[in-house]
Amino acid sequence: MINFETSPEKYKHWKLSIDGHVATLSMDVQEDETLGEGYKLKLNSYDLGVDIELSDAVQRLRFEHPEVRVVVVTSLKPRIFCAGANIYMLGTSQHGFKVNFCKFTNETRCAIEDASRHSGQRYVAALNGTASGGGYELAIACDEIYLVDDGNSAVSLPEVPLLGVLPGTGGLTRLVDKRKVRRDRADVFSTLAEGLKAKRAKEWGLIDGYFPTSKFQEGVRERVEKIVAEADGGEKGNGVELHPLDVEAGDGGREYRHVSLKYKREGRYAEVTVRGPEANQPTSVEEIVKLGDSYWPLRAYRELDDALLHLRMNEPLIGLVLVRTEGEIDNVLAVDKTLVENRDHWFVREIILNMARVLRRLDLTAKSFFALAGPGSCFAGNLLELLLASDRSYMLNDPEQKVELALSELNAGALPMSNGLTRLQSRFLAEPERADEVLTHAGRFDTEEAEEAGLVTFAPDDLDWDDEIRVAVEERTSLSPDALTGMEASLRFAGPETTDTKIYGRLTAWQNWIFQRPNAVGPHGALTNYGKPTQAEFDYKRT
Amino acid sequence: MINFETSPEKYKHWKLSIDGHVATLSMDVQEDETLGEGYKLKLNSYDLGVDIELSDAVQRLRFEHPEVRVVVVTSLKPRIFCAGANIYMLGTSQHGFKVNFCKFTNETRCAIEDASRHSGQRYVAALNGTASGGGYELAIACDEIYLVDDGNSAVSLPEVPLLGVLPGTGGLTRLVDKRKVRRDRADVFSTLAEGLKAKRAKEWGLIDGYFPTSKFQEGVRERVEKIVAEADGGEKGNGVELHPLDVEAGDGGREYRHVSLKYKREGRYAEVTVRGPEANQPTSVEEIVKLGDSYWPLRAYRELDDALLHLRMNEPLIGLVLVRTEGEIDNVLAVDKTLVENRDHWFVREIILNMARVLRRLDLTAKSFFALAGPGSCFAGNLLELLLASDRSYMLNDPEQKVELALSELNAGALPMSNGLTRLQSRFLAEPERADEVLTHAGRFDTEEAEEAGLVTFAPDDLDWDDEIRVAVEERTSLSPDALTGMEASLRFAGPETTDTKIYGRLTAWQNWIFQRPNAVGPHGALTNYGKPTQAEFDYKRT
Repeated sequence: MINFETSPEKYKHWKLSIDGHVATLSMDVQEDETLGEGYKLKLNSYDLGVDIELSDAVQRLRFEHPEVRVVVVTSLKPRIFCAGANIYMLGTSQHGFKVNFCKFTNETRCAIEDASRHSGQRYVAALNGTASGGGYELAIACDEIYLVDDGNSAVSLPEVPLLGVLPGTGGLTRLVDKRKVRRDRADVFSTLAEGLKAKRAKEWGLIDGYFPTSKFQEGVRERVEKIVAEADGGEKGNGVELHPLDVEAGDGGREYRHVSLKYKREGRYAEVTVRGPEANQPTSVEEIVKLGDSYWPLRAYRELDDALLHLRMNEPLIGLVLVRTEGEIDNVLAVDKTLVENRDHWFVREIILNMARVLRRLDLTAKSFFALAGPGSCFAGNLLELLLASDRSYMLNDPEQKVELALSELNAGALPMSNGLTRLQSRFLAEPERADEVLTHAGRFDTEEAEEAGLVTFAPDDLDWDDEIRVAVEERTSLSPDALTGMEASLRFAGPETTDTKIYGRLTAWQNWIFQRPNAVGPHGALTNYGKPTQAEFDYKRT
Repeated sequence: MINFETSPEKYKHWKLSIDGHVATLSMDVQEDETLGEGYKLKLNSYDLGVDIELSDAVQRLRFEHPEVRVVVVTSLKPRIFCAGANIYMLGTSQHGFKVNFCKFTNETRCAIEDASRHSGQRYVAALNGTASGGGYELAIACDEIYLVDDGNSAVSLPEVPLLGVLPGTGGLTRLVDKRKVRRDRADVFSTLAEGLKAKRAKEWGLIDGYFPTSKFQEGVRERVEKIVAEADGGEKGNGVELHPLDVEAGDGGREYRHVSLKYKREGRYAEVTVRGPEANQPTSVEEIVKLGDSYWPLRAYRELDDALLHLRMNEPLIGLVLVRTEGEIDNVLAVDKTLVENRDHWFVREIILNMARVLRRLDLTAKSFFALAGPGSCFAGNLLELLLASDRSYMLNDPEQKVELALSELNAGALPMSNGLTRLQSRFLAEPERADEVLTHAGRFDTEEAEEAGLVTFAPDDLDWDDEIRVAVEERTSLSPDALTGMEASLRFAGPETTDTKIYGRLTAWQNWIFQRPNAVGPHGALTNYGKPTQAEFDYKRT
């Protein structure tokens, strides 16, 4: 079982050091400390274990080190920054693992960009040696890239020429959409196994600058100092430590403080229940900071995040997740009110940004989600997003057992999807005014009002409830999991596309296609034959 | 070999009739008139042969029947509109054929929307019976959809539940992006094999209206008359007939009047040469109409279109296309000037719109394109788009043999890509002002100016030219064709996404992935087992 929790003192592959406003994240991958078997992590190549640490570091920097303005990403290996995802690991992995590995690494890189955009932590890639493949893709997720000009070091995306697969961790998309490299140059660069050295790389916009070996540290430092000097100087106070989640994990599921995950393996589905906050949550920033990571909206969403990752990587046979909430609507709304009122405080802002990221992780999870709003549920405000993020929702219609939904200001823009829209906007593309109507609706929605407003899919009565859900679950879990994945990836992201959605949609879908092709993964495929004395043999038919 | 030319008198599956401003396109598929072997086209299901006729009809309506304001798409079969792509045909097809078949049908549906948007020909789907799968996808490409309310007829997308594949001919994307159906309802609809009948289909926004059987013809007619009455009444004059292309086809290539296509099969590449117009092309609308389909910009682009389709469907082993032009730059610019000056005339407008569609067909062709600008070439104006559409370009730098590029007003917006940008805008995303600079540049660009302006990728001199191109061709054709397809699909479409690009990117990429999955096409896959006594058996692992 893969474990997603870690912390700096446990890191095997990264060193995190903080010096005033500057953090340095140094990659120093330990060859033998692999997550799986049968490969060595040479040349700072990475597997999921390495990326789990990176993801943890990016997250901790936001919560524990709010004073940091610049994060320098570099390597402790001489002449090599990072060689990208380990090819032998990829070559020996199952398809589903490859896909989920890439998704997680993509989310980590998007989290870097999210930290830069929203938390004022700029990322500088200090390439002290060659950055190839996923190594350059990590660099290109940073705000600025500096390469050592030592006559040898280069940036490269050798996936297409060497491996017959794509630079699928955002590489191709960020090349033309983020760095806006001219498409013909991007074409040349992406087919050039050896990549480009400093001068040409700068000319083509692949890096932001370069320095000779003797001046490299100094050059990067000067640039970093300049960014710090120009950064918003507002003091953020001390950070808040993120403690381990303290989960009770067993074969039947995972029990967290606020989240319960139960596997119904025989039925190929799982049940997730998020318990809303207790009454009397703190309302002042001081109290919230004092509570730290025990504060419900931070704790509950960290738990949900962990549960989603376990579902993805450790429970591939589970295809459907039933989402429930338990608690008092008023308590959820009270928390949302506090969050909104204090959103200018850095810690509250980070809490909200984390909620948004976790919800986007849900949007991007290749499982079906059905939200079930029954008696005692609290799909309100931030928790209503769980229902809106689900592929469909069922709300009990029973005069004897009142069920209600409610909105808060958090539904109005603080928790955007990857496409830049709120889930309400995505839902009501045909009638955009409806999103405003439900946001300004006075009070809660009972079942009939919710159905009328278009907030839920189905509203069965008490007699039908059990049967309707049982049949829906059985039907859903009987369908082709692949067709469902493709369908959900299409229906969830209506409306505009962003760099993020292009990475998860266009680029990832093509990469997944290629990951199935004999030219990559067959006995004569390029990925299979990488590093072997045998050569790849292609079927040259174009599709 | 598949032939893409046809005309109404040869149609086997469609009847095209014109009555004043209203055309009726009636589907009446002949079961045994299949393009391939081993299947029957029951229930108005279609194969590529059926869609080639539809594509031809949509094209001819624009050129030959400019008076038409509404095209009614209906069926002559009782109780069935169209059952979609033939499953047995799909089940027995090679992967590459399936993918290219779907791409062509997608282009036909986009052409319907293009005719509606730009040629004032509105499409009304008159569903006199059930429209399932590709049948409903054809309807959803129309502007309005009316369904007979006979207690039995339904619209449905049964691909996911019945076949384990996607409604990949635009279905999922148009559902949520064009008709903006609520995503949870789209989820339910797309997993409901039997679909929805009239009332619920209307409620959910899947159709625009319904009529009982006895009133169906009358109801549709009234609606059509209303659209005609509200349409722009400007008379367009007589149509212009599209004659057969008169091509000399052999094993070594295809010779058209203005286009030459040569297969270099041993090298897995092809050479396309487009010959520019002669001098003294007509400058008045009267002369142009008189020339009709012999007018260079119409003829040459129809030929190029046919060449592209042959490359795609009949030459799968060719992975690279070298694009050349031959002729006088002044003559190309003179034609562009005439087109721009007369673009308000319907026929000139249709000529330009057709050029734009053919160029988009090139953008979407899964082959690499290298443009070669040598002596005697005429990459100017509309033909410069061929160079800009190519993955990279080579321009000879030789003082002894002058090579030049030139722009015209057609490069400024008349020939947009599927993403809504011009090819110049897509090229200069990083420096948008460059697009304007090259457009306002006085006179032609010699090689050094072109390189400086960023218009070409490489400018080898006379000594290097042959070798550099030979090596580039050998390298390109040695790479994994699948990786190249995924790479090009990512790099060509930087910038915004539209419904069209989402269909060709996100939706198609997922569909192609699914078309490789054992759950669809393996011995126990749903597509393989459709209609057999055996049942599909799934590997339920989610990826």
